[in-house]
Amino acid sequence: MGRWQPGARERLVIAAVDLFAEQGYDATTVAQIAERAGITRSTFFRHFPDKREVLVAGQEALSRLLAEGIAAAPPDATPLAAVALGLQRASSVFGPLNHELAPRLKAVIAANAELQERDALKSVGLAAAMTGALLERGVPDPVARVAAELGVLAFKLAFARWSEGTRRTGAQFGRLAVAALDELRAASTALG
Amino acid sequence: MGRWQPGARERLVIAAVDLFAEQGYDATTVAQIAERAGITRSTFFRHFPDKREVLVAGQEALSRLLAEGIAAAPPDATPLAAVALGLQRASSVFGPLNHELAPRLKAVIAANAELQERDALKSVGLAAAMTGALLERGVPDPVARVAAELGVLAFKLAFARWSEGTRRTGAQFGRLAVAALDELRAASTALG
Repeated sequence: MGRWQPGARERLVIAAVDLFAEQGYDATTVAQIAERAGITRSTFFRHFPDKREVLVAGQEALSRLLAEGIAAAPPDATPLAAVALGLQRASSVFGPLNHELAPRLKAVIAANAELQERDALKSVGLAAAMTGALLERGVPDPVARVAAELGVLAFKLAFARWSEGTRRTGAQFGRLAVAALDELRAASTALG
Repeated sequence: MGRWQPGARERLVIAAVDLFAEQGYDATTVAQIAERAGITRSTFFRHFPDKREVLVAGQEALSRLLAEGIAAAPPDATPLAAVALGLQRASSVFGPLNHELAPRLKAVIAANAELQERDALKSVGLAAAMTGALLERGVPDPVARVAAELGVLAFKLAFARWSEGTRRTGAQFGRLAVAALDELRAASTALG
């Protein structure tokens, strides 16, 4: 067996982020992304419906893992303890590639209103996944929503810190996320 | 001197929501909206950059009023007390027209992914406005973010209740928003 080679999906993500950063999102076509990744246009469309969705690759996996981690929490876990387990479970999707792409991805999103909207919807999706999983555990409605929103805030804080720092593994992301959730828990006692 | 047409903006919003609900968002053009509202296409573009922005009309006013209400809170107000004052200030933008349009607006947004994204970005904008105003008051960073997210949740809960109920005034919306914020404050003590 040779050296690990990124799969077609990973190559598409790398090619898309590179091209968006180099020449702008609007100027980049699916054909260019496919060419840069060394695959065919039709293979592109087996992985993504359009160029925009490349930038939220992994959102479904993230939502699923967040929900699974919450569902698998011990029955006596508090809502935030369950969210912490969800964040830890979800951290497995992150690795050195995400870490390497994160700064350029952030710049690309910051430069494009359409991508900011898609990114905002991603947060809504993560909150909905966590809220649903907490409700399934019997957490009452407003508590579940608040816990899920704190989970999304923790996720965002941790992702910013992880992507700007030198720690690159998913496990390190997970620890940052749990630490961020602890900060937010402390903050929520100072709301008045 | 051209005659100032009171209500052109409101007529455009009504026409747009009616047409989107009747024939779908994608099938509706700016020209059709302008015609239904009894104004010219160029007047449309004095009010909105495109048909999509008609559906988030008032977002800037909302953000401004939320921030103003938070800024005007007494110096010793807690973060959530300041958010409550922001929600009360912002309630002045709502009235019977918003109440009447809300169910169709909700259906139109639910039927269109692009509009859901724009709507998600609106929530992000409201949270950012409140976070900024709280930071200005000297509320520390994670507390400001959590208070602002609870403010957004309270806003959404209250809007859903107000638009589905029989209470139609802005003042009634404001009371529902403060009550929702109280619920969320109570919920945040049960997070564990």
